[in-house]
Amino acid sequence: MSLQLFIGNKNYSSWSMRPWVLLTQAGIPFEEVMVRFDAFDADSTFKQTVGAINPVGKVPVLIDDGFAVWDTLAIAEYLAERFPEKRLWPADARARARARSVCAEMHSGFGALRNHCAMNIEASLPEVGRIVWRDQAGVRADVARLEAMWTELLAEHGGPLLFGDFSIADAYFAPVCSRLRTYALPVSPTVAAYVDRVLALPGVQAWVQQALTEHDFVAMDEPYRASR
Amino acid sequence: MSLQLFIGNKNYSSWSMRPWVLLTQAGIPFEEVMVRFDAFDADSTFKQTVGAINPVGKVPVLIDDGFAVWDTLAIAEYLAERFPEKRLWPADARARARARSVCAEMHSGFGALRNHCAMNIEASLPEVGRIVWRDQAGVRADVARLEAMWTELLAEHGGPLLFGDFSIADAYFAPVCSRLRTYALPVSPTVAAYVDRVLALPGVQAWVQQALTEHDFVAMDEPYRASR
Ligand SMILES: N[C@@H](CCC(=O)N[C@@H](CS)C(=O)NCC(=O)O)C(=O)O
Ligand SMILES: N[C@@H](CCC(=O)N[C@@H](CS)C(=O)NCC(=O)O)C(=O)O
Repeated sequence: MSLQLFIGNKNYSSWSMRPWVLLTQAGIPFEEVMVRFDAFDADSTFKQTVGAINPVGKVPVLIDDGFAVWDTLAIAEYLAERFPEKRLWPADARARARARSVCAEMHSGFGALRNHCAMNIEASLPEVGRIVWRDQAGVRADVARLEAMWTELLAEHGGPLLFGDFSIADAYFAPVCSRLRTYALPVSPTVAAYVDRVLALPGVQAWVQQALTEHDFVAMDEPYRASR
Repeated sequence: MSLQLFIGNKNYSSWSMRPWVLLTQAGIPFEEVMVRFDAFDADSTFKQTVGAINPVGKVPVLIDDGFAVWDTLAIAEYLAERFPEKRLWPADARARARARSVCAEMHSGFGALRNHCAMNIEASLPEVGRIVWRDQAGVRADVARLEAMWTELLAEHGGPLLFGDFSIADAYFAPVCSRLRTYALPVSPTVAAYVDRVLALPGVQAWVQQALTEHDFVAMDEPYRASR
């Protein structure tokens, strides 16, 4: 068995964070290959490198003995099938269906939050967050939906994580937890406590610590300032 | 067992089409509940009706004995687990992973094609298509990606469909086939032949025939004209 995971900058790449946290938190060994975000033009080093293994030209990409699986959702399903003993999805069929609904919802939704509050682990941007919160009804709607979703799931499954124990769903929302903290968006105590628990998971902590050592300023990911 | 599928207008609702075609083509009995697209405002009948069963307020929604599964990808996975004998995903693990990658790619991508060539089954809009093709590099890039994806998969699995026999992936791309035809976008003979085969599937034909009987003009879905 040889698993490789191609990822972008840990500080910025929210999609890369999902399967990396999933593998790490579940204790599945893999080799990481970091491809720095220089630019996303066709002739950038990033696009050339990633394009050679993934026709979509995006990270993350999982390589299993030469076979490429791209897109976080497909990677999550692949790992769940490949490592059934890790119970990456909830064991109960309905809980599993609900976990897939909320992951799919994240996958194609929450556009306002993703656009206006790009992941930036090392930063603390409460001022940016205040303006975004004031001006962007879409961000307020996205956070309201997270409030409703997380509150309901935590109540239904009793916590500490969305479906009780750690699952793909928590890995899927880990970058969102990081954003809520970076931009200091206002959330309920229940949601704040869930965010704290996710950010304290060893698999998340490992990613965050490594993000903090990067010291790489990628301007296209920080439209609100010219340097750190 | 009682499955219900909530869908939007058959003529316009590309996301609804996916699980409907999947269920129909696979011969899985279900009851259809059509919720007309009146508007997508919070107080529209559509939003009120769908919001009562799906917190995201979108169709499609599958209801299995009172339990709601939303989002096409989660519905597809749920049905694949619930009806393993139907082999909705390819049987081979790597083919299955690839099918999931391309469905996930569709789920969060192809934004230019989706925006500029909204599904409209009863219409024939080659003039609109010509202008879109001339002006929208994003649409040309999306179609180029479909060309590459489909050509490779058809060659690798030998056809007639993307992974040999019918699978979730073909249901996922059926609305795209409909768009390519409605807007008469230029495609290779290989892709044109795949589009023909998908549109000729009994499950797709059933949807198309029913779409043609709707005679409902939804202005928000047809920005390029004021009436049929
Ligand atoms: N739907 C994809 C999204 C992946 C994605 O957008 N990745 C970003 C980095 S976080 C990327 O590679 N962007 C390059 C580009 O957009 O050209 C997934 O779930 O894996
Ligand atoms: N990611 C969702 C997308 C569903 C979707 O966008 N459905 C449209 C109709 S085709 C809808 O209900 N739109 C209502 C709205 O956007 O408010 C899925 O895969 O099911």
